[in-house]
Amino acid sequence: MRTKKSIPLKLYQKQAGKVGQSPGTLSAFGEKPQTPTGITLIDYDSNKSEEKQIETLSELRQLKDSSTNSWINVEGITDIDLVAEIGQLFDIHPLVLEDIVNPRQRIKCEVYDNYVFIVLKMITYSDENESFDKENVSLILGKQFLISFQERPGDVFETIRQRIQTEGSRMRTFGCDYLAYRLVDLIVDHYYVVNEKYGEQIEHLEIVLSEKPDSDLLNEIQTLKRELLLFLRAVLPLSQALTGMMKENVVLITDETRVFLSDVNDHFMQVKDTITSFRELAADMLDGYLSMISYKMNEVMQVLTIFAAIFIPLTFIAGVYGMNFEFMPELHFKYMYLIVWLLMIGTAGSMLFYFKRKKWF
Amino acid sequence: MRTKKSIPLKLYQKQAGKVGQSPGTLSAFGEKPQTPTGITLIDYDSNKSEEKQIETLSELRQLKDSSTNSWINVEGITDIDLVAEIGQLFDIHPLVLEDIVNPRQRIKCEVYDNYVFIVLKMITYSDENESFDKENVSLILGKQFLISFQERPGDVFETIRQRIQTEGSRMRTFGCDYLAYRLVDLIVDHYYVVNEKYGEQIEHLEIVLSEKPDSDLLNEIQTLKRELLLFLRAVLPLSQALTGMMKENVVLITDETRVFLSDVNDHFMQVKDTITSFRELAADMLDGYLSMISYKMNEVMQVLTIFAAIFIPLTFIAGVYGMNFEFMPELHFKYMYLIVWLLMIGTAGSMLFYFKRKKWF
Amino acid sequence: MRTKKSIPLKLYQKQAGKVGQSPGTLSAFGEKPQTPTGITLIDYDSNKSEEKQIETLSELRQLKDSSTNSWINVEGITDIDLVAEIGQLFDIHPLVLEDIVNPRQRIKCEVYDNYVFIVLKMITYSDENESFDKENVSLILGKQFLISFQERPGDVFETIRQRIQTEGSRMRTFGCDYLAYRLVDLIVDHYYVVNEKYGEQIEHLEIVLSEKPDSDLLNEIQTLKRELLLFLRAVLPLSQALTGMMKENVVLITDETRVFLSDVNDHFMQVKDTITSFRELAADMLDGYLSMISYKMNEVMQVLTIFAAIFIPLTFIAGVYGMNFEFMPELHFKYMYLIVWLLMIGTAGSMLFYFKRKKWF
Amino acid sequence: MRTKKSIPLKLYQKQAGKVGQSPGTLSAFGEKPQTPTGITLIDYDSNKSEEKQIETLSELRQLKDSSTNSWINVEGITDIDLVAEIGQLFDIHPLVLEDIVNPRQRIKCEVYDNYVFIVLKMITYSDENESFDKENVSLILGKQFLISFQERPGDVFETIRQRIQTEGSRMRTFGCDYLAYRLVDLIVDHYYVVNEKYGEQIEHLEIVLSEKPDSDLLNEIQTLKRELLLFLRAVLPLSQALTGMMKENVVLITDETRVFLSDVNDHFMQVKDTITSFRELAADMLDGYLSMISYKMNEVMQVLTIFAAIFIPLTFIAGVYGMNFEFMPELHFKYMYLIVWLLMIGTAGSMLFYFKRKKWF
Amino acid sequence: MRTKKSIPLKLYQKQAGKVGQSPGTLSAFGEKPQTPTGITLIDYDSNKSEEKQIETLSELRQLKDSSTNSWINVEGITDIDLVAEIGQLFDIHPLVLEDIVNPRQRIKCEVYDNYVFIVLKMITYSDENESFDKENVSLILGKQFLISFQERPGDVFETIRQRIQTEGSRMRTFGCDYLAYRLVDLIVDHYYVVNEKYGEQIEHLEIVLSEKPDSDLLNEIQTLKRELLLFLRAVLPLSQALTGMMKENVVLITDETRVFLSDVNDHFMQVKDTITSFRELAADMLDGYLSMISYKMNEVMQVLTIFAAIFIPLTFIAGVYGMNFEFMPELHFKYMYLIVWLLMIGTAGSMLFYFKRKKWF
Repeated sequence: MRTKKSIPLKLYQKQAGKVGQSPGTLSAFGEKPQTPTGITLIDYDSNKSEEKQIETLSELRQLKDSSTNSWINVEGITDIDLVAEIGQLFDIHPLVLEDIVNPRQRIKCEVYDNYVFIVLKMITYSDENESFDKENVSLILGKQFLISFQERPGDVFETIRQRIQTEGSRMRTFGCDYLAYRLVDLIVDHYYVVNEKYGEQIEHLEIVLSEKPDSDLLNEIQTLKRELLLFLRAVLPLSQALTGMMKENVVLITDETRVFLSDVNDHFMQVKDTITSFRELAADMLDGYLSMISYKMNEVMQVLTIFAAIFIPLTFIAGVYGMNFEFMPELHFKYMYLIVWLLMIGTAGSMLFYFKRKKWF
Repeated sequence: MRTKKSIPLKLYQKQAGKVGQSPGTLSAFGEKPQTPTGITLIDYDSNKSEEKQIETLSELRQLKDSSTNSWINVEGITDIDLVAEIGQLFDIHPLVLEDIVNPRQRIKCEVYDNYVFIVLKMITYSDENESFDKENVSLILGKQFLISFQERPGDVFETIRQRIQTEGSRMRTFGCDYLAYRLVDLIVDHYYVVNEKYGEQIEHLEIVLSEKPDSDLLNEIQTLKRELLLFLRAVLPLSQALTGMMKENVVLITDETRVFLSDVNDHFMQVKDTITSFRELAADMLDGYLSMISYKMNEVMQVLTIFAAIFIPLTFIAGVYGMNFEFMPELHFKYMYLIVWLLMIGTAGSMLFYFKRKKWF
Repeated sequence: MRTKKSIPLKLYQKQAGKVGQSPGTLSAFGEKPQTPTGITLIDYDSNKSEEKQIETLSELRQLKDSSTNSWINVEGITDIDLVAEIGQLFDIHPLVLEDIVNPRQRIKCEVYDNYVFIVLKMITYSDENESFDKENVSLILGKQFLISFQERPGDVFETIRQRIQTEGSRMRTFGCDYLAYRLVDLIVDHYYVVNEKYGEQIEHLEIVLSEKPDSDLLNEIQTLKRELLLFLRAVLPLSQALTGMMKENVVLITDETRVFLSDVNDHFMQVKDTITSFRELAADMLDGYLSMISYKMNEVMQVLTIFAAIFIPLTFIAGVYGMNFEFMPELHFKYMYLIVWLLMIGTAGSMLFYFKRKKWF
Repeated sequence: MRTKKSIPLKLYQKQAGKVGQSPGTLSAFGEKPQTPTGITLIDYDSNKSEEKQIETLSELRQLKDSSTNSWINVEGITDIDLVAEIGQLFDIHPLVLEDIVNPRQRIKCEVYDNYVFIVLKMITYSDENESFDKENVSLILGKQFLISFQERPGDVFETIRQRIQTEGSRMRTFGCDYLAYRLVDLIVDHYYVVNEKYGEQIEHLEIVLSEKPDSDLLNEIQTLKRELLLFLRAVLPLSQALTGMMKENVVLITDETRVFLSDVNDHFMQVKDTITSFRELAADMLDGYLSMISYKMNEVMQVLTIFAAIFIPLTFIAGVYGMNFEFMPELHFKYMYLIVWLLMIGTAGSMLFYFKRKKWF
Repeated sequence: MRTKKSIPLKLYQKQAGKVGQSPGTLSAFGEKPQTPTGITLIDYDSNKSEEKQIETLSELRQLKDSSTNSWINVEGITDIDLVAEIGQLFDIHPLVLEDIVNPRQRIKCEVYDNYVFIVLKMITYSDENESFDKENVSLILGKQFLISFQERPGDVFETIRQRIQTEGSRMRTFGCDYLAYRLVDLIVDHYYVVNEKYGEQIEHLEIVLSEKPDSDLLNEIQTLKRELLLFLRAVLPLSQALTGMMKENVVLITDETRVFLSDVNDHFMQVKDTITSFRELAADMLDGYLSMISYKMNEVMQVLTIFAAIFIPLTFIAGVYGMNFEFMPELHFKYMYLIVWLLMIGTAGSMLFYFKRKKWF
């Protein structure tokens, strides 16, 4: 029973016909929003933490001058007007907004005068339908605020949210840059889960390979290789983005948080190494599979050749004395039948001896 | 039905016999100009925008001292004298002119004292004849002017032109460097279209591979690999050119435009990543195809060997008792026919048992 | 007789469900501690050296201000509370503690204000059960102390311990940084042993390849390649860690010790080169194996083809004159039997001549 | 008709037994000088240009202090004494002289106090004998002179010579560094010709591959790959040499010439890119060829297996009833012959059905 | 006749059980010293040159303050006590001594305060037993002395020694750094000889490949690839070592010698390039060999299939009319024999036509 499913990382996401469009123009990407875009605000400092749903954007305006940390989480990025309004409110560069609503945007980190813009890729594994789910998460980290944009509504940030509510936690005493770190860390933690799944699949395939290799296995190894490639390509720019965040001149990120970011980068390098190893292991498995087939085919050919080479001459001899010519003197010679048998046994024996010496069996 | 056509990226473009020619000598490349070279001038600033066809180059002379931005678009580069005259008018280095009229020129960016010279490659997809079209686009970006050279007349810049006519657009308020950015952005947008086409083709080939692989598929994968290679090699230097444009010491490009160029570079990296992945996927597909053939061949060999190994000995036995010797005692033994049948069934049975144990079926 | 066992480097170690956990949270990894965590303290300077078992951590407190060098060796990292207490005592960053208790932690070196944190991987070979044993060793090097954490109790550091007891040895006169170097050196020395084992295995496989290659060999080469990959990936970051330790600004490491660290780095480069060569040799062996099979298969095919092509036509001729038609004039022609024999010999001869010319035998 | 010849780039040129010889010792390399070494002097400035054959080296002495530019072209490098004398006259380092007379010397550029030493490789294509010709060209660029050394006499520099005689040309007004640039440019132009030839050969081989692939094609692709490798390795160091010439601190090269050198470097990068692509295309062709053979072999095997599997059982059945036992009841049953035919047709039919379902035809 | 022998570069040299040993401890490596360690002293300056055998180390003591250059050549490194004494005499770091007596030590260059330590690998070819000989040569270059350590006694430095005796030679006037350069140069010259041997072997194998490829060739190509890999890995660090010697801050090496070292580095790059090319050529040869086998196998298969597919049906037809049924009406039909012949010829003809169309012959 093979229960592993291939991960539905889409090979290539269609882009809306955008050639020549003005940069910074926000255009909805493909699919209709299934649920309305929701905004959650968590306002916190070391003393208090308050969570509420935002209905109108004007509620956010007053935040700009408050002394508390504000985490604004936007779920759903298909409501372009809303994103544009938020952009205007917090004075965000149009190109940043364009990247936020683009689900194909690569991972990156850009440092602007008043904020840092980070694009991340969250990849979660759902046990029920045994598949992976990919979504872009964009962060805008300002002095006292962090705006996060999720592609789809979901509770992936639940653990972080709970952490903020815990009084005295590091989350509460540190600033928004620490919150940003926690979100990045969460995402990298999910990469570990992906790796674990791939690790299980490789071990599973290695067992199948050594026990009962068939052409399905070939497909599965190929699919795995392809998925690992796409996964690697998708997450690879994270290291560069993290390095960008840790640069000395990024004043919005404190030295304390920099230590943590360095740690998450270290984790990510481990993820990257593992995937690269997996890719090589999958390639080795494929080689092993092909070698095994070659070996098996050679074995099959030897059996065939031994049978054919032994019996074809014998059948020929039998055929000769099955001919109906009137004048065949041997047919009437009494010991001829015996002689023919001896001849046939001798032929077969010398064949066997020859093949034995050639180490064919 | 396979409708994908291979892209007619020419492997190697012939060069006119030019060995030892003086550098900066302008020589027409190959094909005759099909249409006369046309020059369009768009003169614009934040207040007005005027478009006209230029008949004589003297009309351009007065532009040099005007305070408006001037976009001079030259369609067709085979009229060498015209290019030379423009070069003289704007004081362009002879080597630059030589590069402009050379359709084989690689993508590059060179910074001169009074202008920046950029060579780009526009690759457009035409839906009607299902093929790609490649042409060099050279830009000379000066203080208040931008000269663009297209290989062939065409309306690829139409969207940009319309944008300039829109009052209050960023295009009107920003300088010529922003216009140059928009042209680069347009070209990279077209690379996305190329990528999309290749993505579709890869998905199509993957379906064919899993359903009905034949030797045509082999050719198609090979062709795709080759095209991706040529495409990648053609566009790869763009990243370097963009980095050159964004350098601090390039005074003709403002900081504001630099942000936009950084964005287009980011897009290009995405294009590059995708193509590289496509190359690897195509290579994986080829491996998969070959593995499948190996697997299938092994299967075929096993069937052949089973049949041959079972029936060849039986046919031999039958042949023996078809011999016409006078003295063959078995022939007259009553139960011999039955015994021979049992012998044959036994032989076949033990063969089958042996192959079963070898897991050949 | 093949006695080589594959090395049980685990492909992927399970991580406790840790997604979204607060960083610096210590959680036990998997296996229960088989033996209680033991702490040994060696207090030494050039005059004296004292070794004792530590029962309560309060004994360590007074060490902080003593002028002697203290080596605190902690065996077993599953007792999380203990590690946390030590961390508190010596003012260690929570992320460092998290890395110490994580057996999957990559090799690395991090420089903090008051200490240097080093993670190493000890790989030892046990002759009795012919397998390798991997464990993480973490070092915290402070001004007058070195804390080492071993995953499991064991006597791998025995030689170092004896050295400290030797009066007048360099170990006694140099500081704790020299002790740290000696531990790194010991670990790299063990890598040499691993290399030697792999070298023996490669030589063994090369002999098998040239003498009696079979499908087991294929598996063994594959396994070797995989192990070498995993070993290389595991130890590769050591070079970077050593470079980090040798940086000018790491004040805890003296110039004298830096010379020694440079030497151990040099040794490690040799280990790395050897493994890389081994990987390439293993790949070459695999190619050689496949080439040999191809060559052998071709030979087998030629034998088969020669037999089939010679005897199949002869058998056909014999079959023709074995038909029972009433009107077959040749059957009654006296010399026909002789003629048929000549015909058959002629056919066989011309076949042989043709194959000879094709250089098939 | 295949007219392409492989290029006689020698794999490895023998070196005279030189181990342990004193550096700077000039020793003749192998072949005898076929023609005596000739020296041509072109003395020019913006006003005049004079060309003459030099008989005795003393004629060169007075040049050293003249204010005109002097181009001394030495044809033939086997006359070691002459090279040594020139070296002494112009105060050239012995190692430079050793490199000049060494036809195996790699491309390089070395900057000395009073001159720049450049080694180049000229590769020309001769249409008559359809082969390439390789020779080293060494340049010594001084303040007012340029000495060029050709391996063999020849008119490869003819176009340059003519250019110097043209009054008012850039050649006349610029200094010797521009002349050096022109020689480099000429050599790179010849690389384009080589590329063009290889491009033609690749297109030719691709046609053969798609039309009538045979084992000759295999050899030709292999030869092409090998030649491209040797060509690439030979010319690759040029980029580094050019970069060395363009460095700021090389005072003998003016800023104006630097622009031109940058242009020739750009051309060379194009040559390099093309060759690299050709290498990959040749590798792809080889893969394609092998895939095609695999595909074809599978097809052949299927035909064989279908025939064998259908007729071998039928022949067995016929053989059974050709046996001569006295007691074979079926032989006397009237409808048995018909039944046997039906049995045979049924067997063949079910085989065909089975193979059809397996998609073997 | 194949006379090429594989080079006995040992894959992996055993290390004495040294795990955990104190660094700088000198331990003899394996083999007993066959001849006693000999020390030769050459004392020279521009006026005189004196060579003598050193019996007791005390003779060396006075050298330290003499104004002449002293070259101390130690032959044999197994006499550990002697090496230790020399080390003490010249104040050498223990780690350096450890590297000197270690025959496995990689090539490297380390700069100490009073001396430069260089490890080199001499690879010489002996014509008589057609094999290569590898030994480590360590150099300690001080202000007025150079100590060289050879693994085994031998006359490889003979040419250098003679050169010193030549009055007025550069060797005499330059310092010890020039002598060190000459030794490095000698070693690189021997690499050229190795390259030449490999070049000859490749050309030899290419001829065998095109004329009479067999399975021995396969082994030889594999062995060659392996040797080239080991040779490359062994000598590769030389470039880094030379760069280290040429650094500005190495005061023991004069600017004049630096020019010479740059030249020897240039030579080494050529050696490296050639080996890399050889590796690629060997890999291409292996591919060519496999392709040829595939091609040949396909050809063999086609011959087999044609024979089998033509004669198997005919034999079946003959078999049918060889059956002994009582009631076979065709047997008694007069023209049936003729009809059967026509049927058989028709079958064979249509087969041939089908295979012809498939281009199988």
